[in-house]
Amino acid sequence: MAIVLGQNQYGKAETRVVRIHRDTDRHEIRDLNVSTALRGDFAAAHTAGDQASVLPTDTQKNTCFAYAKEHGVGEIEDYALVLARHFVDDIAPVSRAHVEVDEYRWDRVAVEGGEHAHTFVRTGHEVRTAAITIDAGRAVNAEWVISGIRDLVLLKSTGSQFTGFLKDRYTTLAEATDRILATSLTARWRYATAQVAWGEAFGQVRQILLERFATVYSRALQQTLYEMGSAVLAARDDIAEIRLSAPNKHHFLVDLAPFGLDNPGEVFHADDRPYGLIQCAVTREGAPPAGPSWESPATFA
Amino acid sequence: MAIVLGQNQYGKAETRVVRIHRDTDRHEIRDLNVSTALRGDFAAAHTAGDQASVLPTDTQKNTCFAYAKEHGVGEIEDYALVLARHFVDDIAPVSRAHVEVDEYRWDRVAVEGGEHAHTFVRTGHEVRTAAITIDAGRAVNAEWVISGIRDLVLLKSTGSQFTGFLKDRYTTLAEATDRILATSLTARWRYATAQVAWGEAFGQVRQILLERFATVYSRALQQTLYEMGSAVLAARDDIAEIRLSAPNKHHFLVDLAPFGLDNPGEVFHADDRPYGLIQCAVTREGAPPAGPSWESPATFA
Amino acid sequence: MAIVLGQNQYGKAETRVVRIHRDTDRHEIRDLNVSTALRGDFAAAHTAGDQASVLPTDTQKNTCFAYAKEHGVGEIEDYALVLARHFVDDIAPVSRAHVEVDEYRWDRVAVEGGEHAHTFVRTGHEVRTAAITIDAGRAVNAEWVISGIRDLVLLKSTGSQFTGFLKDRYTTLAEATDRILATSLTARWRYATAQVAWGEAFGQVRQILLERFATVYSRALQQTLYEMGSAVLAARDDIAEIRLSAPNKHHFLVDLAPFGLDNPGEVFHADDRPYGLIQCAVTREGAPPAGPSWESPATFA
Amino acid sequence: MAIVLGQNQYGKAETRVVRIHRDTDRHEIRDLNVSTALRGDFAAAHTAGDQASVLPTDTQKNTCFAYAKEHGVGEIEDYALVLARHFVDDIAPVSRAHVEVDEYRWDRVAVEGGEHAHTFVRTGHEVRTAAITIDAGRAVNAEWVISGIRDLVLLKSTGSQFTGFLKDRYTTLAEATDRILATSLTARWRYATAQVAWGEAFGQVRQILLERFATVYSRALQQTLYEMGSAVLAARDDIAEIRLSAPNKHHFLVDLAPFGLDNPGEVFHADDRPYGLIQCAVTREGAPPAGPSWESPATFA
Repeated sequence: MAIVLGQNQYGKAETRVVRIHRDTDRHEIRDLNVSTALRGDFAAAHTAGDQASVLPTDTQKNTCFAYAKEHGVGEIEDYALVLARHFVDDIAPVSRAHVEVDEYRWDRVAVEGGEHAHTFVRTGHEVRTAAITIDAGRAVNAEWVISGIRDLVLLKSTGSQFTGFLKDRYTTLAEATDRILATSLTARWRYATAQVAWGEAFGQVRQILLERFATVYSRALQQTLYEMGSAVLAARDDIAEIRLSAPNKHHFLVDLAPFGLDNPGEVFHADDRPYGLIQCAVTREGAPPAGPSWESPATFA
Repeated sequence: MAIVLGQNQYGKAETRVVRIHRDTDRHEIRDLNVSTALRGDFAAAHTAGDQASVLPTDTQKNTCFAYAKEHGVGEIEDYALVLARHFVDDIAPVSRAHVEVDEYRWDRVAVEGGEHAHTFVRTGHEVRTAAITIDAGRAVNAEWVISGIRDLVLLKSTGSQFTGFLKDRYTTLAEATDRILATSLTARWRYATAQVAWGEAFGQVRQILLERFATVYSRALQQTLYEMGSAVLAARDDIAEIRLSAPNKHHFLVDLAPFGLDNPGEVFHADDRPYGLIQCAVTREGAPPAGPSWESPATFA
Repeated sequence: MAIVLGQNQYGKAETRVVRIHRDTDRHEIRDLNVSTALRGDFAAAHTAGDQASVLPTDTQKNTCFAYAKEHGVGEIEDYALVLARHFVDDIAPVSRAHVEVDEYRWDRVAVEGGEHAHTFVRTGHEVRTAAITIDAGRAVNAEWVISGIRDLVLLKSTGSQFTGFLKDRYTTLAEATDRILATSLTARWRYATAQVAWGEAFGQVRQILLERFATVYSRALQQTLYEMGSAVLAARDDIAEIRLSAPNKHHFLVDLAPFGLDNPGEVFHADDRPYGLIQCAVTREGAPPAGPSWESPATFA
Repeated sequence: MAIVLGQNQYGKAETRVVRIHRDTDRHEIRDLNVSTALRGDFAAAHTAGDQASVLPTDTQKNTCFAYAKEHGVGEIEDYALVLARHFVDDIAPVSRAHVEVDEYRWDRVAVEGGEHAHTFVRTGHEVRTAAITIDAGRAVNAEWVISGIRDLVLLKSTGSQFTGFLKDRYTTLAEATDRILATSLTARWRYATAQVAWGEAFGQVRQILLERFATVYSRALQQTLYEMGSAVLAARDDIAEIRLSAPNKHHFLVDLAPFGLDNPGEVFHADDRPYGLIQCAVTREGAPPAGPSWESPATFA
């Protein structure tokens, strides 16, 4: 049975583009980590070492910088869409482009009660993300946009239980009627369209996720995630699907009894590993298909 | 259009199991990082907060430890297979189990020319990996085994070029006829069977990857990877597919001309980011299908 | 010449104490990373393996948790002072205790315009720190308090230059009259007393650091740091000394000329390594001496 | 009381120099991370923003690369000594130079039983280190050389106990007569001279550390460290002092009794945090004084 080349892709990962918009004295900053990946007719590069169809990853990097100047960086989804369209439209061997952008958040430094015009402080642990996939030719539905957030670290100090679970020979966990629930959330949602007010949508989704995490009484992280995801889809018709991945960052109640102390939910040990990992998707029936949009270099191997 | 629960899974990630085999004075050590993920009938946990079908992740952790005692830890593939079979066979709601194991390598400390019986030093940057997927009922071909290696950092100081590539408006890269080629390789290969002498196979694959990287004159990382993967499949009929993911860890020749010095391939700056990322699969025609074996918590969102 | 035991210390590092104050429905959270280190008469432990004078590091960890209950956690300086006093007062062999605390910042989640009572989101990259050193017997001036902040990531997109510097044979850097200045600041300041409103002082120092970074026109990072430190000492008589350590996080202007584009301070590459590292202390003449307060496990080896 | 500039230093951190020696077909590789720090007459840079005495950190980086060509890289101590001498001798305002070098280890890839001439694999977790301090004028004893190793991860699966320790109200730890002892060792030793066969000395010290860790029956990590350090000083008269810093990487015996299983030292949980941190110095009476040699940017703030 023959040995053949299978799926392959290549690109430039983690180009750290910082774009200052300085049209007025009040500067704007966009701080990005951009990764590109191309698929197409690259068989000869693999089997014969022939690079005639291979646009260097160095060129892809240059393009990320040049486009930040030529097209500016508004919302990261728009910036990534323009980049991805360029690769499939202008580079002949490319049949599919995948562009991922992480954006780091900066706030203006407060000076004498006002916001400084050109000085910023990194804020938030969290990262805003976008992942664009475009197929060459671009038939209907061949532009996919996934937006997201990661490293959104959340904790509620009550309003969470874990009881009534399945038990087997290896079960020792006690039921908990009041516990800390904490996670470092990754949420990614796929739009049904590429025509969205991205920044506004991001803000709305983020707020829904926070509010539902806060206000839903949690019988398990699964239920909390499903409520969060459902609320996002209920609020926005243009979102086809959301995926949530949530480590259960365990906070163990410390046994203070040996020291003659009680501990009614006050002193916890925040453990590193292992952690539970709970993942679920919430989808809209009849939404456009996902196609290859969830594939990326990170899922390849 | 209705909002519904989509794909979901849960488990315990990164349980750090260390198993000492001390049947004789010459101890053996297995140092593992184990992650489990279960799929099945968990809808009620999401939609109603009903945990009656949910085996706690804490129990999954306990099982990892107990199985290390009851079954020992020989090759990580065997250990993971036994764990995964347990989850699908013994836990009613589970329809699919996915178990991943990383193994850290220890060598014996040399004392007076001999190997010490119970003292070890961590060696190698690299990590040996296994990922097992088993479907309940276990029809033919419903046990998938992927073995692998990651963080295998390789460098060749000559025998590599990059020339004749596609150029566009954004291309500034000079052609290189002699350069450093360096990567931190991730390789994962899927077996066509679950009956393999895992340790021996791992050693053979690792050696082939190293030798081919060393001896193939490289016209591009794509070609090197394809040669490495092809050689693995040529050597072992029981491997259906191999996937290689290789960051191109750039080593830039430093321009010493301003200091009146030439630099014929002697002084380089090892850059961190961005890096090229080259990925390819090499497959055997007619091999058993991959099924869900490449899916994992890491590829979910 | 005899071989003898030199300086030595031991303790428990990175105990992750989370304290929930839940006296009312509006919970408070303190999220800490606590490290203790003890010096004293521990020679026999080293030279004879005799542990009779060694309070286990496990006990030190237990004490961190128990004190979080018994004494609560208000300001981290107070919590660390109480812990350190306990070790030198109550554990006979201890002659010096050093307690370091990192505090991670959480904000309340906003729900319907209000602050949620028990749900929090991690905010800020930055970490508040405290390092307490106490000598047994506690003569005057034998309690030292160093407070600080680290990972305070700052950037100004103009208002910075670097010109007129020393040049030698190896200098190729062009002068810059307008550049990005960015750093990830570590600032630590030593108080002249242990009687301070710690939280208020921390807030004031942080704000001065931010404002001075924003408003001082920078002729070099050295000058910026000195201005920041001087302003802190000018504002608070109870601070004896401040030390600032600032990586110069380089943002290189990208050359877009090959693409027919100009780049007037708009598109930058944020580089990882190498980075400049600028460090300076600003001190008050005649302030109480620092004693051993700057020594810590991190500076030992 | 006046506010004045205190200690200050600046330099370029983490320049990643890779030097290939290719005088024959059998290449040699030196893979380094180099940091420089200068002290001297830099007050005007701080107080007036005057850079006339400031050699840019960019120039320091260039010098690291140029010296790798001009002087080659043999042993890292020699390379760092030449660099540090240059800064104090040739740059007028510099009164003290501190150069630190980390070296990453590569082995040759084995091909058909032989060693490949120009292909290497990163090996070992551990890093070899050197820290050179030189004062301008260079009086006798004004060149200090500290060599070291870090991230040397060691484990012994028996031959370790912890009993007879001090107990107080907060002590719950059970005595252990047979436990795993594991650490990630940092060892740094100061030479009494700058005339040493550095590579040979490094190999000897590393081997002594490994052997003593293996063969000393451990009554506590303190005792093990002291035995390791003493053995090094006993073996080499040219070493004045050694400092050892050792996290006690806890491996907790898992309680398998709930599952009807015993656990006689076979199954352990490798915990991340907290960890014990044990540090001691072993010194030679009458050795030359350490001067500023242990100070570095890492100990500044």
